[in-house]
Amino acid sequence: MIKFMLSRILLLLAALLIVPLAVACIYREEGRIFLSFIMCIIICLILSFIWGRKIPPIKEIDTKEGFIVCALSWFLLSGLGALPFFFSAYVPNYIDALFETASGFTTTGSSILNDIESLPHSLLFWRSFTHLIGGMGVLVFVIAIMPNSASNSANVNVLKAEIPGPIFGKLLPKIKDMTRTLYLIYLGMTTIVVILLCLGKMPLFDALIHAFGIAGTGGMSNKAQSIAAYQSPYIEYVVGLSLIAFGLNFNLYYLLLLKQFKAFYKNEELRWYLGIMLSAILIIFWNIRSLYDNLADSFRHAFFYVTSLMTSAGFCTVDYTKWPVLSQTVIVLITLIGACAGSTAGGIKVYRIIVLFKTIKAELIHLLSPRRVYFVKMDRKSLPYATYNSIHAYFVIYMLVFFLITLIISHDSPDFQTAFGATVATFNNIGPGIGAVGPSGNFSFYDNISKLTLTFSMIAGRLEILPVLICFSRHAWKRG
Amino acid sequence: MIKFMLSRILLLLAALLIVPLAVACIYREEGRIFLSFIMCIIICLILSFIWGRKIPPIKEIDTKEGFIVCALSWFLLSGLGALPFFFSAYVPNYIDALFETASGFTTTGSSILNDIESLPHSLLFWRSFTHLIGGMGVLVFVIAIMPNSASNSANVNVLKAEIPGPIFGKLLPKIKDMTRTLYLIYLGMTTIVVILLCLGKMPLFDALIHAFGIAGTGGMSNKAQSIAAYQSPYIEYVVGLSLIAFGLNFNLYYLLLLKQFKAFYKNEELRWYLGIMLSAILIIFWNIRSLYDNLADSFRHAFFYVTSLMTSAGFCTVDYTKWPVLSQTVIVLITLIGACAGSTAGGIKVYRIIVLFKTIKAELIHLLSPRRVYFVKMDRKSLPYATYNSIHAYFVIYMLVFFLITLIISHDSPDFQTAFGATVATFNNIGPGIGAVGPSGNFSFYDNISKLTLTFSMIAGRLEILPVLICFSRHAWKRG
Repeated sequence: MIKFMLSRILLLLAALLIVPLAVACIYREEGRIFLSFIMCIIICLILSFIWGRKIPPIKEIDTKEGFIVCALSWFLLSGLGALPFFFSAYVPNYIDALFETASGFTTTGSSILNDIESLPHSLLFWRSFTHLIGGMGVLVFVIAIMPNSASNSANVNVLKAEIPGPIFGKLLPKIKDMTRTLYLIYLGMTTIVVILLCLGKMPLFDALIHAFGIAGTGGMSNKAQSIAAYQSPYIEYVVGLSLIAFGLNFNLYYLLLLKQFKAFYKNEELRWYLGIMLSAILIIFWNIRSLYDNLADSFRHAFFYVTSLMTSAGFCTVDYTKWPVLSQTVIVLITLIGACAGSTAGGIKVYRIIVLFKTIKAELIHLLSPRRVYFVKMDRKSLPYATYNSIHAYFVIYMLVFFLITLIISHDSPDFQTAFGATVATFNNIGPGIGAVGPSGNFSFYDNISKLTLTFSMIAGRLEILPVLICFSRHAWKRG
Repeated sequence: MIKFMLSRILLLLAALLIVPLAVACIYREEGRIFLSFIMCIIICLILSFIWGRKIPPIKEIDTKEGFIVCALSWFLLSGLGALPFFFSAYVPNYIDALFETASGFTTTGSSILNDIESLPHSLLFWRSFTHLIGGMGVLVFVIAIMPNSASNSANVNVLKAEIPGPIFGKLLPKIKDMTRTLYLIYLGMTTIVVILLCLGKMPLFDALIHAFGIAGTGGMSNKAQSIAAYQSPYIEYVVGLSLIAFGLNFNLYYLLLLKQFKAFYKNEELRWYLGIMLSAILIIFWNIRSLYDNLADSFRHAFFYVTSLMTSAGFCTVDYTKWPVLSQTVIVLITLIGACAGSTAGGIKVYRIIVLFKTIKAELIHLLSPRRVYFVKMDRKSLPYATYNSIHAYFVIYMLVFFLITLIISHDSPDFQTAFGATVATFNNIGPGIGAVGPSGNFSFYDNISKLTLTFSMIAGRLEILPVLICFSRHAWKRG
């Protein structure tokens, strides 16, 4: 069954690769680019054929297999999706290509390319297209379009591993309908962003690329200067506002569609999300007010970066590594926090942060009166004790893996803050970090070991660690 | 009852202040130094008299009051212990004096003094003497010597707040005997260190100062160059080895006294502690092997710093901020880990780290088979679920407070790694950090807000956060 699922994913990848091939046709690009896309499609089809020959008798997938399918398909996608870059010789080192593709699918947006603008249109398009695919989740897509080959519970088990954030509640029964609706909302919003960007006099090709980056909160651009290349405050505000929209929990749009406005406004995560965002904007605005010519500029930069980094997109304008240290610390913290659960963004997620903060109060009450039973509340309902504990455990595992990655890549980082910043940037799927990997730098100076570690970091961050760890654990394969 | 306990502590402080006064006599120092110590003693006596007039009718202290007594007495000690520095005008800013004294009592060893060697002997002695007092715990001392004015359970409640680490098990019934034995072991070991240092041709005064710093794992020295001033590999190894001994859980010495050697060797925390230490030494040794003339020197520096920083002492020889980034990251990590629970060291404590790592396995098993009940084991016994969860909650609160402190002090740090390093150094009671607060720098460039924040950070770190947080919570005072 695992193989069967993987073969479906490869089929999908082959289908998706036709899009950049079409782009290559439109711009009449060199033959070797066509060839590399076609070779990649053929490889996908062959593998898909081998693995998918037999339709498996059992259509069930348990939690464990769901996690494994999920992690394996992400490694597979990154590995195969990297081939066009490698075959076309624009990225001669395969590990670089792997890094770049994983960065695309996981919606990180980190790059090892020194000269982005020299890439042909089709490869640039492919790079950003991976954001759109990865943002909502590859498996979500497969399930939305796949004929009923797997049972409903099998689908749930796969989705559990891919959808970010701890909430996955009421919407379970009609999983296929739900994923379709989610995808419709997602694509609809992307279209609106494309239109808004075009109104700001951005060329259509650029608008598509950036809209993909916004939708997946990825942040790759086809310009070396990213958003700064357009010199347009209008575009910066459009990008910022649409990122806020994509950083919301998609369940909230569901609520809006169902006209439950009251539940929408009272949502605790929404309030904290906007509250944290606003505080961060104000602190940075106050902190950098003297750096720019007028207050409007300072505010715009603060607004743009807070939205761009908190939603884990990582689009850039000015170089924030030149800002005061307070602003940089705020940036590190909001990137660790991330946006809402159930959005396309990375990070620990606001929902978990709220629970973590409520832990302080719960623990004090527990210490003061040990016999009293106290439940942490979210949205006026008591949080089940199991969820509460698993959020703690997630945070513990998050920090341990975080420090291990920092330790490994520090062996060839220029300083501690770069190692820390690179881990923050990849593990939370942001893109740019602090220090030498800031907005004006890139990751090309790292050696292969570090690049592989950071690739692992991106995929682990995107899938929220556990599915990836399961692949490396003895327990998972023992009774496979 | 709270006031009564505080009055006892002030009496103790007055008594302890006689020791540096005696030192001032021996070295025939200026009149104003005498005067400042005497004024400080008088203030303590007056306050103690006012608060201690009535012997309270109720001799019980519950957990909440125990925590409050503990936190208040530490703030009080730092506030009053700072007066000699301030009155004698050697530290003209009171907040600087407060920082320095809190750094002493909490066995941090961070300093705001630019020129340590210009201080008179008595003040230097007082500075290091606070390490000895703070190391084992002020309240432990009070309970050990106090006549039976409080009940046994009252004592337990106070001690819970002060003794670092999550273990506090079997030794409860005879709390007074236990604290006395602990203090005897502690002072006995300190005496041995003094003798060993004197054998290394260190003057007696210096040997006392450094032995105090080692015993409390504080790390203040009377030399600007710290241990490097003696140019003696013998002294460096003595310091390193005795720090390892003081970083052990003192319960283990209890086991040795009871001749339970098997339990000693099989202790899981001991094995991890030595294992982490050895790995860190080897990584750093390999990483800095080309920086020094010969391998013996590299090994000595690696050994010295790993022991000095993992036990949270923070004695210095060479400047490790000039080492490669990998070594610096290892240093940051081992300082976060800290030494064993129930020792005089700071940090998260090895015991908790073991549990945190075991969480990964527990969580994977939980995900794969949700219905299976799995207990994390320590020393071959299942860890109670409540302990397991409270260690998670502690880690969560630890990281949240950690990042909040980093955020506040980043407003006047020269770069992110300095802000991060200063928080690591104070919150874990280490002393020197990375960046501008490394071994060759100090904390004098911070403004008053940052110094107060860092003072808070040291005390919160020493008392393991919760007692301090309770003082700031509405709940604690409501039914007081």
